[in-house]
Amino acid sequence: MKVGFLGLGNMGFGMAANLLGAGHEVTVWNRSPQKAEPLVAQGAVLARTPRQAAAGRELIVSMLADDAALEEVLQGNDGVFEGLPRGALHVSSSTIAVATADRVAMLHQDRGLRYLSAPVFGRPEAAAAAKLFVVAAGAESDYAAASALFPAISQKVFYIGAKPSAANLVKLCGNFAILAAIETLAEAMTLAQKGGVPKKQFLEVMTASLFDTPVYRNYGAVLVEERFKPAGFAAPLGLKDMRLVGQSAETLRVPMPVLNVLRDHLLQAIGTLGEDIDWSGIGRAIALNGGL
Amino acid sequence: MKVGFLGLGNMGFGMAANLLGAGHEVTVWNRSPQKAEPLVAQGAVLARTPRQAAAGRELIVSMLADDAALEEVLQGNDGVFEGLPRGALHVSSSTIAVATADRVAMLHQDRGLRYLSAPVFGRPEAAAAAKLFVVAAGAESDYAAASALFPAISQKVFYIGAKPSAANLVKLCGNFAILAAIETLAEAMTLAQKGGVPKKQFLEVMTASLFDTPVYRNYGAVLVEERFKPAGFAAPLGLKDMRLVGQSAETLRVPMPVLNVLRDHLLQAIGTLGEDIDWSGIGRAIALNGGL
Amino acid sequence: MKVGFLGLGNMGFGMAANLLGAGHEVTVWNRSPQKAEPLVAQGAVLARTPRQAAAGRELIVSMLADDAALEEVLQGNDGVFEGLPRGALHVSSSTIAVATADRVAMLHQDRGLRYLSAPVFGRPEAAAAAKLFVVAAGAESDYAAASALFPAISQKVFYIGAKPSAANLVKLCGNFAILAAIETLAEAMTLAQKGGVPKKQFLEVMTASLFDTPVYRNYGAVLVEERFKPAGFAAPLGLKDMRLVGQSAETLRVPMPVLNVLRDHLLQAIGTLGEDIDWSGIGRAIALNGGL
Amino acid sequence: MKVGFLGLGNMGFGMAANLLGAGHEVTVWNRSPQKAEPLVAQGAVLARTPRQAAAGRELIVSMLADDAALEEVLQGNDGVFEGLPRGALHVSSSTIAVATADRVAMLHQDRGLRYLSAPVFGRPEAAAAAKLFVVAAGAESDYAAASALFPAISQKVFYIGAKPSAANLVKLCGNFAILAAIETLAEAMTLAQKGGVPKKQFLEVMTASLFDTPVYRNYGAVLVEERFKPAGFAAPLGLKDMRLVGQSAETLRVPMPVLNVLRDHLLQAIGTLGEDIDWSGIGRAIALNGGL
Repeated sequence: MKVGFLGLGNMGFGMAANLLGAGHEVTVWNRSPQKAEPLVAQGAVLARTPRQAAAGRELIVSMLADDAALEEVLQGNDGVFEGLPRGALHVSSSTIAVATADRVAMLHQDRGLRYLSAPVFGRPEAAAAAKLFVVAAGAESDYAAASALFPAISQKVFYIGAKPSAANLVKLCGNFAILAAIETLAEAMTLAQKGGVPKKQFLEVMTASLFDTPVYRNYGAVLVEERFKPAGFAAPLGLKDMRLVGQSAETLRVPMPVLNVLRDHLLQAIGTLGEDIDWSGIGRAIALNGGL
Repeated sequence: MKVGFLGLGNMGFGMAANLLGAGHEVTVWNRSPQKAEPLVAQGAVLARTPRQAAAGRELIVSMLADDAALEEVLQGNDGVFEGLPRGALHVSSSTIAVATADRVAMLHQDRGLRYLSAPVFGRPEAAAAAKLFVVAAGAESDYAAASALFPAISQKVFYIGAKPSAANLVKLCGNFAILAAIETLAEAMTLAQKGGVPKKQFLEVMTASLFDTPVYRNYGAVLVEERFKPAGFAAPLGLKDMRLVGQSAETLRVPMPVLNVLRDHLLQAIGTLGEDIDWSGIGRAIALNGGL
Repeated sequence: MKVGFLGLGNMGFGMAANLLGAGHEVTVWNRSPQKAEPLVAQGAVLARTPRQAAAGRELIVSMLADDAALEEVLQGNDGVFEGLPRGALHVSSSTIAVATADRVAMLHQDRGLRYLSAPVFGRPEAAAAAKLFVVAAGAESDYAAASALFPAISQKVFYIGAKPSAANLVKLCGNFAILAAIETLAEAMTLAQKGGVPKKQFLEVMTASLFDTPVYRNYGAVLVEERFKPAGFAAPLGLKDMRLVGQSAETLRVPMPVLNVLRDHLLQAIGTLGEDIDWSGIGRAIALNGGL
Repeated sequence: MKVGFLGLGNMGFGMAANLLGAGHEVTVWNRSPQKAEPLVAQGAVLARTPRQAAAGRELIVSMLADDAALEEVLQGNDGVFEGLPRGALHVSSSTIAVATADRVAMLHQDRGLRYLSAPVFGRPEAAAAAKLFVVAAGAESDYAAASALFPAISQKVFYIGAKPSAANLVKLCGNFAILAAIETLAEAMTLAQKGGVPKKQFLEVMTASLFDTPVYRNYGAVLVEERFKPAGFAAPLGLKDMRLVGQSAETLRVPMPVLNVLRDHLLQAIGTLGEDIDWSGIGRAIALNGGL
């Protein structure tokens, strides 16, 4: 399949590489074109602009840093909307606000373009290993069309329904649940350790009994080893995601007190430990507050 | 092995039955003796008092409702301390405060008795199915002695170290982590549902991807189906456990903001929905607060 | 003095009336012109557009609902920027975001206009009674120029410094402190009442001893009498203000856990009790959560 | 009037001195008798035991550190209950749990003794200056009898009703409200300061406008000047009070999220800044969390 791919960050690079590896013809664009070089060496075509990446494609995939980046790539000079042919499909994997997804979906519809939200769960290693979970929403026919790509990048795909932004809401809620699990582990570990149970030992009990699942295992190990820098997922990005959850919560009038705790700990971690800390660095803030 | 077993509540009954089924000679005591009848029918001996259950035993197991019940059973008239021979071992599985475990351990030592903390993870069904997780702490020789029993009641045993109360701390932290997972799911589900994603569908994505583990699966299903009564684990008992976590947190000077959220939601659930609601009934409070 | 006044809502109407009553020549503009009629009857001139209200004035005052309203009044068709002469001063009393104040101040500077932030504390009755507190920030010369107006509308004026948005930050923090006082009273009253002390009696002790100040007296009475509708200051406006505080807190990396509590209670109050409830209606949510 | 006075801590000393100064005949007892010397020099009689201080008195006043101290003074060897004549009145000013007040009131009744709860608001300086606020509850005749003393120690007295513990509940709620005001100021000041408004200036605006009352003025100054050591009211005592509020909240099923914030900040302040910090030292924790 001929695919345009926009955004070669930590996540996008692995996804694009896997599409390429699966035999798709991939034209890639990234703000800093050097990031594309290894892919070009493997046969990708380099586009100089989003417009060029979109021109003549039936399908493009985007994986961008945030709402503003997506809107710029779509509507900017030499943007996707100047190149993408009517009837083409945009599979949008960025983690963006529900309201942005609604607005962007409308912009596509106004231009006779198709739009599928398909955010993913997984860290960069999962993206590189084609082990992502895809959460997709949009017209069923668009989902069907995009399904040709998903096996190359993911271990499982969920179809949520016809409204694209529903997938973004699920993605945001999932990130909230991950960070809440980190917070929970960090609070419990701090208590355990101050009470004489090494946090490593506490984690082993938890993950060998009740919480035998990668989120607890992997982030638990990060907390035990205090591997907060360099960041796998930087705290400011986590804060952005929690802000987006909060925007939906405010719009929908849903109090979410655990979300508040997460945001405050992210602010503390970023403000006192640096902008370059991993989002799991909330564990360091929690330990410090507890006198460790 | 000849075992005295004290406390035939939801949890203790299944544990005693499994010990019996595994061929141990079990003398049972319960405050309400009728609860013992099915066990007696299977060969258990009924003791009229804790003292009687303990008399002449090398090993007793207790599984009682709370700290006060344990202290009464130990020190009351016709209590364990009046019957248990010097050198015998008490395996204490109740969920009690860390400070209580420390005090009770000392009381045993003063009397030449041995004390092993061995609280368990698992709901009553797991107790009945011998699928508990045991978290044990105390002298290694005591742990070795008690290990003759554990296969009959559990799927896995963790040995935490020489200080008995460390096991109680781990147990309390584990219960905190379970309720935090319920809280997290309930907040996210409320948001998802108000945003148009049915909570059942949201749960399926979570448990088929990031959180593929029984705590999320089972409690998630409870939240989806709103099965809050009758209680499997009543909210006032959950509140007790969270209070015990809070006592350790206060003693050890550890702020635990998520714990606070859990306590407040338990108070709201109990105060507005009834004392007989399950601890997962915090999900109902969360949904109500969110206007569902 | 010749003054253009934009925005005749609950607050602006009283301010404009007092300027008029103090002898200033006031041209008024409001989105719904009928609101201006009583002022016109007292000698105000009605402008049909913001541009018209600003044209030829040396000084204008604006008191608008939110950031978007201010930006529209300034930059829209027939907006202030099309009418206000170079060198004229805009005294901006709306409660807006710090970031908006920064941006708007820059827009004025780019056009050779002067900009003073002068938000006020006080409910509509205080506006009507010329009892507001003004918090002003901007160039000293601009503050001096605006000081000709302040006696007509306020009981006291504070000059915060040269950066206009500093006044907005103080205003937002003040609103946070007011709502935090309401929250605190409501939590304490709920506890007192459930413990057998009528909330009216509790309030009397508080306000006759430690908290003998109008915020506690007035909002305390609202809580006692449960006068939440009609709203004096509607909860969605309070939520907007708390969101603006939160934006500054996020930008400046400051955790504010009490702010989170306030936002969640506003969401609950709005979501379950209606959009038209007063911001002190958080007291109703608090009482309900407590089983009252 | 002949009065026995028990407890010469920071608060009790000033109260006893003022009773003495007002012409009452005061017999004093304190655990460390040296504290009594200045009073003895002014004419007080020194009792060696609580029993001696109570013997033959019609009225005693106690002002002790906590629940345990009160219970020991009452029921210990050579305690009050061994000395106080039937029909005598105990005016109990300690800040204690509601449940303790209920239990202690019953103990008095069982012995034919009268019991009035009369906790006070005010810091040690207010005790020394006879400027306390007394919150009294108990039988009206007991309140009438005690009223002979109150003018010597207080600026105002509130009578709450016939149930003694109601006064303790009001006292605890008042302390909660004071600490909540400190928390609020500290959060707002941290935000203001990081936003470029010096906290001193922010405080001046607040206390000269909306919050013109001693709690905000005095604690605000403490926060501005960071006078957290030596403690006027040590954080562990504040934590004890918040724990007692929390016990009532738990018993009465009242969620109090701001109380939780206060407790967590006290834990952080104590755990990271030392047991000897003032309870307003939560402001330091808040500032640190905000990166100041």
